[in-house]
Parts: sequence; structure tokens; C-alpha cells
Amino acid sequence: MRRLVITIQYDGSSYHGWQVQSNAVTVQQVFQNAVEKVFGERLDVKGCSRTDSGVHANMYVLTLDTDMNISNDGVIMALNSNLPSDIAVIDCKEADFDFHPRYSCTSKEYVYKLYNGRIRNPFLADYAFHYRYPIDAHYLNEQAQAFVGTYDYSGFCSSKSDVEDTVRTVKAFSVYREGDMVYFKVEADGFLYNMVRIMVGTLLFVSEGKIKKDSLKDVILSKDRKRAGKTAPPQGLYLNKVNY
Amino acid sequence: MRRLVITIQYDGSSYHGWQVQSNAVTVQQVFQNAVEKVFGERLDVKGCSRTDSGVHANMYVLTLDTDMNISNDGVIMALNSNLPSDIAVIDCKEADFDFHPRYSCTSKEYVYKLYNGRIRNPFLADYAFHYRYPIDAHYLNEQAQAFVGTYDYSGFCSSKSDVEDTVRTVKAFSVYREGDMVYFKVEADGFLYNMVRIMVGTLLFVSEGKIKKDSLKDVILSKDRKRAGKTAPPQGLYLNKVNY
Repeated sequence: MRRLVITIQYDGSSYHGWQVQSNAVTVQQVFQNAVEKVFGERLDVKGCSRTDSGVHANMYVLTLDTDMNISNDGVIMALNSNLPSDIAVIDCKEADFDFHPRYSCTSKEYVYKLYNGRIRNPFLADYAFHYRYPIDAHYLNEQAQAFVGTYDYSGFCSSKSDVEDTVRTVKAFSVYREGDMVYFKVEADGFLYNMVRIMVGTLLFVSEGKIKKDSLKDVILSKDRKRAGKTAPPQGLYLNKVNY
Repeated sequence: MRRLVITIQYDGSSYHGWQVQSNAVTVQQVFQNAVEKVFGERLDVKGCSRTDSGVHANMYVLTLDTDMNISNDGVIMALNSNLPSDIAVIDCKEADFDFHPRYSCTSKEYVYKLYNGRIRNPFLADYAFHYRYPIDAHYLNEQAQAFVGTYDYSGFCSSKSDVEDTVRTVKAFSVYREGDMVYFKVEADGFLYNMVRIMVGTLLFVSEGKIKKDSLKDVILSKDRKRAGKTAPPQGLYLNKVNY
């Protein structure tokens, strides 16, 4: 028996997130079907994270255990032949049995893409949030440093969630522009439900002056969801890196 | 009465090309519906080109005639509010009544995008052709110069077509690489049905050694569809520029 650690990328536009659901197509479900075809049996596939409907992954890590005699390159090729074109296996290696894609993870990085052109870009409808008002990325980057540190982030969590411990350590946050695209990149030891999308929405409140200069820390400390910004839409969000 | 010249961009993934068809959703149809909402009447919308199912446009020019008193910026905003997110109006201006989006055009430019990574990129499934074998873009660019000039291109035309004059003047052809993406860019006074996609497929035959060095001109002169390469798939093709 070996534990395979598999890295995939996916365009989440057509999926209701990662996790299997009874009434909607999810990445996990489609992946498990491909696994069943390749390995000849239904195997338990464990993922590193739930992702929401329409959210993408540049790097998503999962594990499965198998007795099958197949090379790691063979796994990559066979799975890719059995997956739809919007999911790709990019790596496969072995790990010890104490490795868990979710619990062994030391930090995760998300990137949020915002298209800041005056007129929408029709090629980015599913891949970035179109926001037409002026953004000073340098100013937002400066203000966003208030997120870095260990805080009770319960004001940056959707009410759907029933997590008990809402303290998270944000290791880095950066906002930068490349042409008409503005990127929000955040690394943390973990994330609450919708946390990145609420952080982005809150920075847009900062951009619009609805949250005053240097008062983002007060918003965090208030733990009041109503003082944070709107939840930015899902199509701009990418799970970018999972660190172990 | 004024003639409006409108420039749009569209992601063709969800459309059966430009031209209205009885049993499939096309860009022209969706655009005419938006026009009817904005102008309050069904107007005749003339386009610069047919495009195939799944083909995209970075620049597509069309005209319509109206008596309505509305600014050009107003037309842009009103149409964009009534169009789906995969079509965008990026410009609107007036022209004389002898201007025709198709017949006044002096040349068109297409770009074909080929993703040359070993493993497919799930974000490019609808936006580039995945071709995994090595490509020497410099060599192909050199060989592709055989296309430049005035030739009877009947060997580079799908049989569906019933055009009588198959002579076209190719003004420029370039092949270049940016990272894992290889671009084929071609400008001509006009194009036959599937001409660009057959040109790209033929250059892949050159790349694979199925067409020998410096013999592409013979293939063109043979006017034999069987000596040219396969028709490359539609999702890599973009109408890039229309010159008047």
C-alpha cells in the first residue's frame, strides 16, 4: 500500500466547488470517477481544502492510497486521459502515511484577480471580478498590511460557518497591479469561510473611502461582520499554493 | 439617420459563430436582441465576417443605422448593460453610408494560440489548442514566409465552401513563442473558409517533418487540400484586427 500525493489544477467555472454534494457536480466527484476508471476501484480521495462554487485552483493537493503497481508518471497520464479538460493532474509523488493534505498543511496562499478596465473583458467573465472604479493598488497594499498578524477574524467569516476557533495568523498580504489587472495575494495558516473574498470586499470599501485611512485594524478588532465590506464574487478567487 | 460603426470583442466558446442560424445561439442573434432592447426596434446588424463555432474575436466590427438621438458613449453603455458578459462593446463611432464592415475592409488579421506545455492548462481549454510535441517557433516562422504573397489558396479551404475566386494576398505571417504559448499571426486581404486553421495545421506538419524543409510553397502551388495539414481546432482562433 502506498499513499500518493497528487497535485491538480482546475478551472472551477463549471463546478460547485471541491466537495462531493448530492445534487451538484463537484471537482471531487469528477476526480473520484476518473480514479475509479484508472485504479479499477472506488478509492477515498482526501483534499486539502473545500473551495466554493466557481472558485479556481492553480494548486490543489489531494491524497489516495493504492496497492496498484503503476509509476507516478503513469498515474499523471492515466488520470489526465480520464479527466475533463478543465481539470489537470500536474504532479504525483509518494508520502508517508502520516501525511494528510489538509492537516499537514502549514499555510495556504490565495490570489484574487480583479479586472480594473473601464469596459469588461469578455474573456475574463469567469476568471476575474470586473470592478470599474479607480483603484490605487499602492495605497491598498499599504493599508492591507493591517491584516498581517494573529487576530480573531470572526468579522471576516460568512454566517454559514460554525467553526469554533476563529483565530487565524495572516503571514503576508500584498496588493499589486499589472496593467488593468489588480491582484490581492494572501498567505495564512488557515482561512475562515469566505475570508479572502470578505478581505477583498473590505479593501474595496477602503478604496471607496467607506473605511477611513488606517482604520482597517479597528474593523478587524471589532469582530463585526457588518463593519467589513461585501463578499467579493467567487470567479476572481484562486487557491494558489499549499505549503507543507 | 446615422450609420454607427460598433467594435465588439467576444469569447466565442458558447456560440455557434457570428451568423444567425435557425437552430443554434450565435453572437449576431444575441447582439440583435440587445440592439432591439436599446433602440426599441429590430435593426439590421451587418458584421465584418462570419466566424466559426468556438472562434473568438479581439476585434469585430459591425454597423447599424438609427434615427435615435443617443451619444456614442451612451450606445456603448446601453448595449453592454444588455449583453451577456462574454460579449463587450468597446467602441462606437459614426461613418458615411458608403462604409460597409465587410466590403470596406482592406485586410484582416487573425491570431492562433497554441499551448505547447507537456500537460494541458485547464484554464485554456476553450482559449488555445493544446499541442504537446516540441515546436521550434523560429524555424516555423522562417518556413511560414512561404505563405506571404498572392496565391490561389484553394488547397487551404474546406470543401464546404463554394467561393469562386480562391486567390488571396497574404501580407504578413509570423510565428513566435511567449513561454509555453506559441502564436501564429496572419494578415491577408481576405480568407477562405477555415484557411487560417488549415495554415496552422500545415505548419504543424512542417514541425513534424511530414512536410520537408522549404517545400511549403510546393504544397500551396499544388492547390491540393490533401497535401496541406489537418484543420486545427477552433478554440485557438481569434479575429484580431480589421483594417479599413
